[in-house]
Amino acid sequence: MHTLWDDRYALRMDYIKSSTIRELLKLTSQPDIISFAGGLPAPDVFPIEKFKEAAEIVLSEMGEGALQYGTTEGYQPLREMIARNATKYGIQISADNVLITTGSQQALDLIGRIFINSGDRILVESPTYLGALQAWNAYGVKYVTIPLDDDGMRTDLLESRLRTGLKFIYVLPNFQNPTGVTLTSERRKELIEISNAYGVPILEDDPYGQLRYEGEHLPPVVVFDDEIRAKEVPVYSGNVIYTSTFSKILAPGLRLAWVVAPVDVIKKLVQAKQGSDLHTSTLTQFIAYQIANSAWMKTHIQTIRRVYKERRDVMLQTLEEYMPEGVNWTKPKGGLFLWVTLPGNCDTTEMFDKAVAAKVAYVPGESFFPLGGGKNTMRLNFSYSKPETIQEGIKRLAKMLKDNISC
Amino acid sequence: MHTLWDDRYALRMDYIKSSTIRELLKLTSQPDIISFAGGLPAPDVFPIEKFKEAAEIVLSEMGEGALQYGTTEGYQPLREMIARNATKYGIQISADNVLITTGSQQALDLIGRIFINSGDRILVESPTYLGALQAWNAYGVKYVTIPLDDDGMRTDLLESRLRTGLKFIYVLPNFQNPTGVTLTSERRKELIEISNAYGVPILEDDPYGQLRYEGEHLPPVVVFDDEIRAKEVPVYSGNVIYTSTFSKILAPGLRLAWVVAPVDVIKKLVQAKQGSDLHTSTLTQFIAYQIANSAWMKTHIQTIRRVYKERRDVMLQTLEEYMPEGVNWTKPKGGLFLWVTLPGNCDTTEMFDKAVAAKVAYVPGESFFPLGGGKNTMRLNFSYSKPETIQEGIKRLAKMLKDNISC
Repeated sequence: MHTLWDDRYALRMDYIKSSTIRELLKLTSQPDIISFAGGLPAPDVFPIEKFKEAAEIVLSEMGEGALQYGTTEGYQPLREMIARNATKYGIQISADNVLITTGSQQALDLIGRIFINSGDRILVESPTYLGALQAWNAYGVKYVTIPLDDDGMRTDLLESRLRTGLKFIYVLPNFQNPTGVTLTSERRKELIEISNAYGVPILEDDPYGQLRYEGEHLPPVVVFDDEIRAKEVPVYSGNVIYTSTFSKILAPGLRLAWVVAPVDVIKKLVQAKQGSDLHTSTLTQFIAYQIANSAWMKTHIQTIRRVYKERRDVMLQTLEEYMPEGVNWTKPKGGLFLWVTLPGNCDTTEMFDKAVAAKVAYVPGESFFPLGGGKNTMRLNFSYSKPETIQEGIKRLAKMLKDNISC
Repeated sequence: MHTLWDDRYALRMDYIKSSTIRELLKLTSQPDIISFAGGLPAPDVFPIEKFKEAAEIVLSEMGEGALQYGTTEGYQPLREMIARNATKYGIQISADNVLITTGSQQALDLIGRIFINSGDRILVESPTYLGALQAWNAYGVKYVTIPLDDDGMRTDLLESRLRTGLKFIYVLPNFQNPTGVTLTSERRKELIEISNAYGVPILEDDPYGQLRYEGEHLPPVVVFDDEIRAKEVPVYSGNVIYTSTFSKILAPGLRLAWVVAPVDVIKKLVQAKQGSDLHTSTLTQFIAYQIANSAWMKTHIQTIRRVYKERRDVMLQTLEEYMPEGVNWTKPKGGLFLWVTLPGNCDTTEMFDKAVAAKVAYVPGESFFPLGGGKNTMRLNFSYSKPETIQEGIKRLAKMLKDNISC
């Protein structure tokens, strides 16, 4: 149908593309397909009863506030709670350092909006989170990439990248999406030291930090920043912007996340957010606060850890048992994903139809490489499916791969 | 505090400014000030009990879906309901023509994102909705303006504006924000005819269409478009994009609005929304659908109309009784606002401190004029305050103006 809107699209639409993941996910919505493609939390761990209680309390006791317009910055008690928690994790901040966003996706978009001019270079891990690429493509960004290994970003290669002149460095230190790998303490320190030496700030994206299933919690990069500055009180220096979300510890349907940033940056983000969606839903903020600001929340996170750890273990064990020679995968210590590498001549995008025919799905890895590559890789999610379904799905995948491993 | 983020802001931040309204509102949050400045619905008409019931049903019967990730397009039953309602109002559309957005503000932002290149010209009414200016400033738009009178946009001046080469025309036909005036049927036809003749599409923003307190409902501009095309079935031609919201008929804290557009435009909006916030809260969408898709909704809208009509009447009557000579105001047939014009040498921004000292607040009109002007105007909201508070506030305002009318 021809309309007057045709041929009027902005130039930026040339580089805003629909997400490959989302297009593929449509193929995998048939109920008999076992999909490891999504990034979905397990609905089994949604605390539905807690949500019912919280909604009842919020609407009964503060219904007018929860339904009215709110401030762009976010619900003040929620911002204060996040600031208190950050202090526990090692940085002294106040609510003024916190902006509530409509999911992490909005945090990434707003950061792009206030910092990126067309042609600016940003350093990203390769592979990296697809949602960040989608957000920043709209601003005409150019990517500089740095590879990962089992210890996270290859910080030994960092200086060569920093010489290219970067706006900022984007890092997912914990159980990275898509690979599941974690940046070691040593590398966190190195990252901070080098970025400070070159005067390039860091954006730390940490959606899964609380979902660790083994080993010791590592302080976020933002905390290392203060340690090396050797202050007595770990005052937030502001050189690292930190973002996290309620999507994985409460529910993604809330669309609630937050950014920790210097007050000046928060002010600019607020200006951008005013034009973008005015503010995040007061109702979901009130409900999330009601649930998250309780002693029960700690128990709940332990429950999620227990459930996801079992699923990760089942997936790792089944991979071990059934995968053909020549297939390798990461062993994540937390998070939602692991990363499979096939022999170099395989192409997981080409193979995708065969997987769907075998009633199993994954995300072809190449989508996560901003400059191309990774054709022989795939991302598998282990949080969503139940253990027995994971076993069955991995068996199907292994069988399909065996039949095609000559690739 | 100096951080590495300083001096790294994008060029667009030069024209993203914080909203004057929001800064002023901070001044008026003292409880003894009667504020006509906000655009808030009355909390008295929030159907809190219905929200409690709906939340209970949604979480009990479909909790997993309501808390999980959803599609970018929006909750399908909600899209279908909106399509059905549009059909009742005169245009044949399907759910594929509907995108759910995180408030109308996001609809305006996404439309800007997919259509506006830096330097593009958009025709707006003068004065016009401030949120639209805020959204589009980020894309480097240039405004062409057209004045209003009591019958809405001066369509007799339209052709001279269209010759300047426009991306689109932005119109608020019903009870316009900020003036409260309504575009007449004759002018709606003229607008459509001229825009079609010049091949310039229209964006129709209709947040208050259902809040009419007198006179007959006028079909939206989008419907006139089909009438003049003289089809037997009023199939949506797609030349007018239409947007509306649940903020004024249910609750703004939901952050729920929608766009009706050609399928191709919806696809582009979806791509832009993926990068912007992935999707709108499933929880608020499920709850809103539960409430809005019931026979009760009609009664509720009648309640809102009754309450707001009384408040409008009280404000008009008190203005009539107390305002000094030389002050004029519009008589809106619906919506939330009326518009006051003082003698030409008055300045409502300069006068604002005196109003706050007199414990009453308004929005100085000049903020709504994208190219300047309107220093002697102000916007008054009549939906939020109770009738006796409106009387008292207008008396205070009238007294302050009498003391300063020599301006």
